[in-house]
Amino acid sequence: MISPKTICALSTAPGMGAIALIRLSGKDSIDILSRVAGKSFENTPSHSAHFLRLKKVDGSVLDEVVVTVFHEGHSFTGENTVEIACHGSLFIQQEIINLFLASGCELAKPGEFTMRAFLNGRMDLSQAEAVSDLIASESARSHEVAMNQMRGSFSNELKDLREKLIHFASLVELELDFAEEDVEFADRTELLALVTEVLAYVRKLIQSFELGNVLKNGVPVAIVGAPNTGKSTLLNQLLGEDRAIVSNIAGTTRDVIEETLNIDGILFRLIDTAGIREEAAEEIEALGIQRSLDKIKQAKIVLMLSDFSGENSQSEGHLSMDSNTTGQWADEQATIHSGAHFLVIGNKYDLRADQINSPWEFQTPFLPISAKNGSGIPELKAWLSQQILGSFNTQSDTIVSNARHLDALLKTQDSLEKAKWGLETNITADFVAMDIRQAMFWLGSITGQISEDDLLANIFSKFCIGK
Amino acid sequence: MISPKTICALSTAPGMGAIALIRLSGKDSIDILSRVAGKSFENTPSHSAHFLRLKKVDGSVLDEVVVTVFHEGHSFTGENTVEIACHGSLFIQQEIINLFLASGCELAKPGEFTMRAFLNGRMDLSQAEAVSDLIASESARSHEVAMNQMRGSFSNELKDLREKLIHFASLVELELDFAEEDVEFADRTELLALVTEVLAYVRKLIQSFELGNVLKNGVPVAIVGAPNTGKSTLLNQLLGEDRAIVSNIAGTTRDVIEETLNIDGILFRLIDTAGIREEAAEEIEALGIQRSLDKIKQAKIVLMLSDFSGENSQSEGHLSMDSNTTGQWADEQATIHSGAHFLVIGNKYDLRADQINSPWEFQTPFLPISAKNGSGIPELKAWLSQQILGSFNTQSDTIVSNARHLDALLKTQDSLEKAKWGLETNITADFVAMDIRQAMFWLGSITGQISEDDLLANIFSKFCIGK
Repeated sequence: MISPKTICALSTAPGMGAIALIRLSGKDSIDILSRVAGKSFENTPSHSAHFLRLKKVDGSVLDEVVVTVFHEGHSFTGENTVEIACHGSLFIQQEIINLFLASGCELAKPGEFTMRAFLNGRMDLSQAEAVSDLIASESARSHEVAMNQMRGSFSNELKDLREKLIHFASLVELELDFAEEDVEFADRTELLALVTEVLAYVRKLIQSFELGNVLKNGVPVAIVGAPNTGKSTLLNQLLGEDRAIVSNIAGTTRDVIEETLNIDGILFRLIDTAGIREEAAEEIEALGIQRSLDKIKQAKIVLMLSDFSGENSQSEGHLSMDSNTTGQWADEQATIHSGAHFLVIGNKYDLRADQINSPWEFQTPFLPISAKNGSGIPELKAWLSQQILGSFNTQSDTIVSNARHLDALLKTQDSLEKAKWGLETNITADFVAMDIRQAMFWLGSITGQISEDDLLANIFSKFCIGK
Repeated sequence: MISPKTICALSTAPGMGAIALIRLSGKDSIDILSRVAGKSFENTPSHSAHFLRLKKVDGSVLDEVVVTVFHEGHSFTGENTVEIACHGSLFIQQEIINLFLASGCELAKPGEFTMRAFLNGRMDLSQAEAVSDLIASESARSHEVAMNQMRGSFSNELKDLREKLIHFASLVELELDFAEEDVEFADRTELLALVTEVLAYVRKLIQSFELGNVLKNGVPVAIVGAPNTGKSTLLNQLLGEDRAIVSNIAGTTRDVIEETLNIDGILFRLIDTAGIREEAAEEIEALGIQRSLDKIKQAKIVLMLSDFSGENSQSEGHLSMDSNTTGQWADEQATIHSGAHFLVIGNKYDLRADQINSPWEFQTPFLPISAKNGSGIPELKAWLSQQILGSFNTQSDTIVSNARHLDALLKTQDSLEKAKWGLETNITADFVAMDIRQAMFWLGSITGQISEDDLLANIFSKFCIGK
């Protein structure tokens, strides 16, 4: 399904750089290059790079570039591909693209190179989607999840599941074909075990989405607490060594709307850090706990900071207020964010004379720290990491991180549950077959194999009896 | 003068993109690639591209990349070079760079690839400097100037000048060597003609800097005038079709601090456009003409807009105020910006019953337009372009655009003037020779040939008489 048009686009990050890369893909891309270059690249071997003076229509030199030619079947898209490495001036980028547009190329639509790779069978749909996740990955864990998916581990698992269901459906459908002969090819107990097994696996994938989603988008964390409990000190302590990678690369600073930190390769996004940095003394008094509640609503993790020094009446005052506040928060946890993790942090614990374990009566976990001298900080980081990773291993487990995949998996689960119920209640095979086909359709939609060809092919190849 | 260290850096624009390019240069770059890749690239031909799975230290796949190998003597820097085209995620960029830093590369300093190209004799200093100008070029003209310089047209002209001076100096210095024999090798009239010729050429190059500088940095333009004279309409009319290329490329929008327009490939930067867009009615009244004068101080071109409809008393009032204002401006021209070009624009001229040519008594040129219906706009653009280009042809003439070059040319001029004066006043040859050597030194500093070897070599090769 090779598209007839040759597409062209800037493939490197927008903006000025030493080098920019412009990419052409399509049957005619090498011909078009020959025309623009004024010399033939027809017999150029694949994967070869060539110095070239690109000229404008008026004959003046536009740029000195290096073009690399990739042949059909040996490129990312599967089509003839030309990469032009030019000087990274905005003007030159634009002019080179204009030159190729004037010579028969079309401007590529977003993702069109990867779409062509999919259409040409270079990768399946979930792998293609992983390319975009991979490019957006900002942390080691989101990179791991995307890389595993792009390399096909998710696709392979889905393939296994589909094969099991295909086998199952073949048996059921064959039984249907010979219904009048009252043949029973499939052992219903065995079928039930198979559906239960697949269902359990689909459920595990669905559960992984919560992790996949926060790994991909970062974990929103709120630090709340009364003034002078040490929110700002804690923030600096956390950011000190682990400032997220996005702000580490020279030149990649972007408008800072929030502070991010990287723990165990997970990106944590601190909500409303500006407010914390200001440490407005009147905040709590003026706005009550409403503002803190608003923060908690957006957060996946809430760190509730209290002054535990027990040193002066003022902090005792805060302590008791925090106690009330925290109590109120704890009561509202269920209604606010069912998935949020709460931790009460007792700061300035090093200043306390009497050592207590947990002052709270409710179930929120408690951690004593000293934001100032750093004690308890490694434990805090470990706790944060643990809340997110849970029992998953991002290197070996398949983590679903795409909302479209989640949707398809939920629909698969739904169909499988119907099929299971059908088997348990002994309804007729055609209903069960329909549910299984639905489940396969939704599983297949993840990788883009949405035809029913597999099912048909499987029946007619394995079970063909000359009919 | 190949540096022993292999350098490594991100060469494409910072930020996220489909593809990013990381470049290695240095004697060991291919060895280092082999080590990191876990397979040998030692016998890989130059200019060949290879698919590769780059692995992290823990063995997990970091990225699927395409590496291109360039051999010593056949690369931009002249050294062994490796280009790694990876997925353009910030995380992957950083990790790949870290991988190569851990394997013996050093992070490249700004411009170090081009500096190595210069040190390895791939280009001279002025060509190397042009690379940076080329990358920064935002308009057709600045691109033209940088491209001509990078391709060596400026260097060649300087070479011609230097050769003339070398010839000259050889004659003078030879005369010095044989001073006691009273030989006169050089015809002083001829020498004077030669110095005068070179001097005239150096002066022309110096003059071109004014153009080169504004082409490179954009031409600051101020539109001034009383409220309701149509500044905003004129701005929209000008921007309508010719919005500068920097905002045309998808994704390259940047914080807009000024409006830019592109006329004849020249970038014009409109000063304080925000103020014009607001068209604050009280502006003139409140701030007097001080604010307008401030604008003019920064401007290379000042467009003074007046309402010329002659339709109502209000605009007549403005007209007379403008008249005073403009008079005052005109008086201050000399003190404000000696190089600024002024144009009085009579707007709403189409509404005027009586046609007058120029209402001004002073020498500022006058152009009647209608910002609303567009009449006079092509003439305005032609006028703008003409003020900048003057008699220069950016395609064929050498335009100096670098302040370092200007400085060297001014010093060359100074030395040549001394030499000329010396010839005219018949001072001894050794003083003239010293001035000429100084001139050659400064000319040579532009391209990086700052040794006196040329001079010596020329003397001893052409004029060697067995001494």
